[in-house]
Amino acid sequence: MREVAVIGVGMTKWGELWDKSLRTIFVETALLALDDSGIDKIDSMYIGAMSSGVFVGQEHLASLLADYLGQTPLPATRVESACASGGLALRMGFIEVASGMSDVVLVGGVEKMTDLNGHEATYALGTAADQEYEGYHGITFPGLYALIARAHMEKYGTTREQLAMVAVKNHFNGSKNPLAQFPYEITVDSVLNSVMIADPLRILDCSPITDGAAAAILCPVEMAKKMKKPVVKIIGSGHATDTIALSSRKDVTWLEATYQAAKKAYSMANKEPKDINLMEVHDCFTIAEICVTEALGVVEKGKGGEAVELGKTSLEGKIPVNTSGGLKAKGHPVGATGVAQVVEIVKQLRGEAGARQVKGARIGLTQNMGGSGGSTLVHIFERE
Amino acid sequence: MREVAVIGVGMTKWGELWDKSLRTIFVETALLALDDSGIDKIDSMYIGAMSSGVFVGQEHLASLLADYLGQTPLPATRVESACASGGLALRMGFIEVASGMSDVVLVGGVEKMTDLNGHEATYALGTAADQEYEGYHGITFPGLYALIARAHMEKYGTTREQLAMVAVKNHFNGSKNPLAQFPYEITVDSVLNSVMIADPLRILDCSPITDGAAAAILCPVEMAKKMKKPVVKIIGSGHATDTIALSSRKDVTWLEATYQAAKKAYSMANKEPKDINLMEVHDCFTIAEICVTEALGVVEKGKGGEAVELGKTSLEGKIPVNTSGGLKAKGHPVGATGVAQVVEIVKQLRGEAGARQVKGARIGLTQNMGGSGGSTLVHIFERE
Repeated sequence: MREVAVIGVGMTKWGELWDKSLRTIFVETALLALDDSGIDKIDSMYIGAMSSGVFVGQEHLASLLADYLGQTPLPATRVESACASGGLALRMGFIEVASGMSDVVLVGGVEKMTDLNGHEATYALGTAADQEYEGYHGITFPGLYALIARAHMEKYGTTREQLAMVAVKNHFNGSKNPLAQFPYEITVDSVLNSVMIADPLRILDCSPITDGAAAAILCPVEMAKKMKKPVVKIIGSGHATDTIALSSRKDVTWLEATYQAAKKAYSMANKEPKDINLMEVHDCFTIAEICVTEALGVVEKGKGGEAVELGKTSLEGKIPVNTSGGLKAKGHPVGATGVAQVVEIVKQLRGEAGARQVKGARIGLTQNMGGSGGSTLVHIFERE
Repeated sequence: MREVAVIGVGMTKWGELWDKSLRTIFVETALLALDDSGIDKIDSMYIGAMSSGVFVGQEHLASLLADYLGQTPLPATRVESACASGGLALRMGFIEVASGMSDVVLVGGVEKMTDLNGHEATYALGTAADQEYEGYHGITFPGLYALIARAHMEKYGTTREQLAMVAVKNHFNGSKNPLAQFPYEITVDSVLNSVMIADPLRILDCSPITDGAAAAILCPVEMAKKMKKPVVKIIGSGHATDTIALSSRKDVTWLEATYQAAKKAYSMANKEPKDINLMEVHDCFTIAEICVTEALGVVEKGKGGEAVELGKTSLEGKIPVNTSGGLKAKGHPVGATGVAQVVEIVKQLRGEAGARQVKGARIGLTQNMGGSGGSTLVHIFERE
């Protein structure tokens, strides 16, 4: 298999984009990525979207977007793995370029969520859980993650304040990202006094409902070396699943799919957690980031909350996590999130991350997760 | 890239499966395919499903099905390209095995459509059209294909009776397929006197609403040669898109995505239309099969209707089309259709097709199409 590079990335401002439709949001973003790559001819497209059917009544999404990007009759494939759809699109593009089947592949993620009201959007997001054994009984994602949070607090002594510190850290980072939906700082007090959603999680523990897209252009490393931008290689890719229902797991505080996907990605990249300079992970709720850093081997099991409190994962810490602001501050247009993580890592490894630049970053990791951890994609990137 | 074989296929009886949920339908089918292959360890799964979100409120589908098949933490990917989702799953599995990334890949397609009533199911299917420029104005798929049919009749003199003959031929074939939803013969008169749906299409011109699944197991040819079953190779794969809205096309009677996908598949296989012994094509409406055979180069442009009338595409004809009964008689659980086409071709090439066996069949083709032709997958198979 051939070595694969990311030679272009694009992202537009995320938020409640009332004046733009899904196709417009995607096309604007894809054109930015193409422009960044310096390439105008692509061979194939992969689109990550979680539920364009429920959110905007539109399936057959990859054809629609290929059409509006002026790229028919190009092969265009939509992939879905709930909130990990973007990371999955990246993996598919990686396999296609690595296989030699295509040279230049556009990988995009997109979701238009605000056409639904809050109740309807909560239903749409609930389609990522087991509808027959979880949704039917009335639980939604804040409830599922609240169960995880409570179990983590009981088992490991993780504190309510440590959960809040994840949100505070990510909003601090997000305040330096002009494309973030909520680019401003918050405090531990503001989290602790925000509206209760599902005990112990309050609204400032939860990532928001967002419209947005992100895109990346992949090609063989040999081709990327001829272009003007610094070469960022994809050196590891891991994909794993877990039981979709939380009730089927032996330990709800442990994200087995993240552990398994990371194991494969580390092995392919021939790297260990200590080699990673920064990472973008799936903080759909504050507790998620804590569990994810444990499953990725960045901190010991049970020590994720303590690590945040000690500043280990902050922008100036030993391993900065979610320098972009994460899902919490940057926003979470579900299908786009996994690709936006790549945008951040590529910008960081190129030294283009502005006020939130991690000095000397050379190796980065992305972790993108579906549902309550029923699927996970982990990718590792290295600057040549 | 490595040569890829299909070493196992599975399909259960299709119809209105009130007593089974989506996951049960899929798991039963996948186990049949695994059993047929003689292999019990798979490396990866691809699931084609068009709109499990709208049909049954369930996204995150590949993880759910990997879980219920007892295959976590295996990588599992759902792909969507409307009614071409199954064909797309096959292509993804083909690329993954060809690339060397995985050895044994399960490719499945599934849809549970009858949990919705007819009005709701028509809405769900309509998500394959351009919702903003087609759906919003009230047109549904029977209407879109009726426009194609009327244009074909005006331009080429295709007759109402020729349309009916497609349904009659496919029901004749389907009467020999015990897994078909409607395994019985019909007549031209019964089609012409059936309920009008969208002039000129009547209900017996339309494929039905169906619950069902299909599955296939792929592996490298070298591995397949060590197994007991005859080796059926995938020798060509083509994937193409077209404008999603019918109104954007220069000629609505011409399926450009089918033409482009076929061109790639023929080229990869180093075959021409005359080399193909039989094919399974996307007869979602009778007019569709006529247009598809033209775009595949089996008959001249405009001669698709005449070819059916002359028996060229019948079971004993020069090139049998839809020996399984096609979407029309076998049923059309949208995401499953593209994989069921593979099941039929593999059974035919192995000589296991019973009363509908095409004698001496060695090379077969599948054509699976999304929406009104906005995406198409073409695959060519050869028995070693």
